[in-house]
Amino acid sequence: MLGTILYGPRDVRCEEVPEPKILHPTDAVIRLAATCICGSDLWPFRGLNEVTSPMAMGHEYCGIVEEVGSAVTSVRPGQFVVGSFCLSDNTCPHCKFGFQSSCQQREFMTGAQAPLARVPLADGTLVATTVLPAEDLVPSLLAASDVLGTGWYAADAARVRPGSTVVVVGDGAVGLMGVLASKQMGAGRIIVMSRHKTRQDLALEFGATDIISERGDEGVARIKQLTNGIGADAVLECVGMKESMFQAIHCARPGAMIGYVGVPHGVELDGQSLFFSQTGMMGGPAPVRRFLPHLMDLVLKREINPGKVFDLALPLADVAEGYRAMDERRAIKTLLRL
Amino acid sequence: MLGTILYGPRDVRCEEVPEPKILHPTDAVIRLAATCICGSDLWPFRGLNEVTSPMAMGHEYCGIVEEVGSAVTSVRPGQFVVGSFCLSDNTCPHCKFGFQSSCQQREFMTGAQAPLARVPLADGTLVATTVLPAEDLVPSLLAASDVLGTGWYAADAARVRPGSTVVVVGDGAVGLMGVLASKQMGAGRIIVMSRHKTRQDLALEFGATDIISERGDEGVARIKQLTNGIGADAVLECVGMKESMFQAIHCARPGAMIGYVGVPHGVELDGQSLFFSQTGMMGGPAPVRRFLPHLMDLVLKREINPGKVFDLALPLADVAEGYRAMDERRAIKTLLRL
Repeated sequence: MLGTILYGPRDVRCEEVPEPKILHPTDAVIRLAATCICGSDLWPFRGLNEVTSPMAMGHEYCGIVEEVGSAVTSVRPGQFVVGSFCLSDNTCPHCKFGFQSSCQQREFMTGAQAPLARVPLADGTLVATTVLPAEDLVPSLLAASDVLGTGWYAADAARVRPGSTVVVVGDGAVGLMGVLASKQMGAGRIIVMSRHKTRQDLALEFGATDIISERGDEGVARIKQLTNGIGADAVLECVGMKESMFQAIHCARPGAMIGYVGVPHGVELDGQSLFFSQTGMMGGPAPVRRFLPHLMDLVLKREINPGKVFDLALPLADVAEGYRAMDERRAIKTLLRL
Repeated sequence: MLGTILYGPRDVRCEEVPEPKILHPTDAVIRLAATCICGSDLWPFRGLNEVTSPMAMGHEYCGIVEEVGSAVTSVRPGQFVVGSFCLSDNTCPHCKFGFQSSCQQREFMTGAQAPLARVPLADGTLVATTVLPAEDLVPSLLAASDVLGTGWYAADAARVRPGSTVVVVGDGAVGLMGVLASKQMGAGRIIVMSRHKTRQDLALEFGATDIISERGDEGVARIKQLTNGIGADAVLECVGMKESMFQAIHCARPGAMIGYVGVPHGVELDGQSLFFSQTGMMGGPAPVRRFLPHLMDLVLKREINPGKVFDLALPLADVAEGYRAMDERRAIKTLLRL
């Protein structure tokens, strides 16, 4: 079959790879309905994370179960399933505490930019639908696998509540999903920092009430102005850079939580500043599995349409162009047809 | 009257000072029932915070209202009141959000190690009892003014829940109040890090279930051992040093919150480590005013006895000895009789 392999910076290829097999009794193999490229795939693509050996790319997936290992009991061949990019047993103490992304058996999904993929820890990781979903819902179900779940976690960690004034820092796919999540959680006002017209438009469609293009101190001043000098009740940090983190902290009101889901790069926090600003922090890799049944339900009832975040769809064979389009910001997020 | 003035490192004196007067229409003057020395008073006493001019010491207080300014409407002369060390209007957006310690009009109380004290923002700051409390309740009501409210906030910020496994880092007066607060919030297990017999005994009396004397990596290993390798659901950091903060972070389970109330000194947090450990943080000066009515109620109903944290009582004239006793760890907390 065809699969996606990253050989080094900017060298991603769609090429013939072996079909995945059941390796452990707890595995499943699924036939993907669609797959996609994640913003985090760009880190190794850009050479910012070292690539020491060829990497099988792709960790977002949904589709039909093809085969299950002998120990798998919760899903069976023929069912449509969605799973998290974090593989988890969903039974260990960390999973039961709602942090499946720190599961004691945690693995990260790989090799999902392909027609078939092996899903370890299938019982804990996969959630099946009761009936086969309509074809047009596939992009939204695929989004639930990572980008929607991650934006949702950012809003959950930031403790968005009905009526909250929310600031979303970052207008990438995760930030946009954070807007959608905040809207679903009843936020009264959702302020998005964005300078890109297509992303601004999508943010507004997902529920943003205000778009601001200023950044840094000017951005903070604008948010303070919009909130009568108070600051935001909840802040979603969806970038992970030093500048974006400080932006997030400085526009938070005392007592606000920052939900941060961009992997921090070069971010150091001064304890005393954080103390006196009374800014709360909660982040990390999103425990998507916690939210997955609810998110799938919202999609299946057509209450949300996160699939709109895919503004480019390409056949798998053109995966390299998909990476380039996202790298060059020509696309927010690329769906790959199989 | 007598008052307490700090002139420089280790030079604290009880001497004749002018009686306080109403300076603003929103002030009250109260006659203190008792006062005390705070762990934070030791920072300037030890010369770790610079003393540039003589400082009127004392910010914990309760007593009878002597006089009120013309704008004060919620308390009247003759009432028994307790107030927070943070003076707040209790009406601004930050106060309404429950963070009175970041009130837009915030001031810090001073000059309360004396028989009379001026309390600015009296309406927002003071809470009156319906009847004069019994004499033996005065130490516990005094504790509510800061140390109890701060320990309570640590537990609240750490989101202690019924059944939680809590770790308290720091066995000073605030840490001990954190134990009491965790117990009241229904914690199932309260592990206290302490090496001092008298503090260990008091911790056990306040509800600690486990005392561990190990620190650093050994302390973390011991806590992991006590929690089946999982870590704590909630951690109260009641010290503020680099070592204690990392101790707190490393014994927290993924998804746990750290409520930190010791002013951080020399604490730098690495964003990426915090991200992957999924440790949440919330701290700052305690919004005692949020909790004060509830805490006073618990004291008046004799459901808690935080006054036990005072293990030394001296007449105000001996205030210098009170500072020395706390500095040399001969006393946990000193009550001053007036």
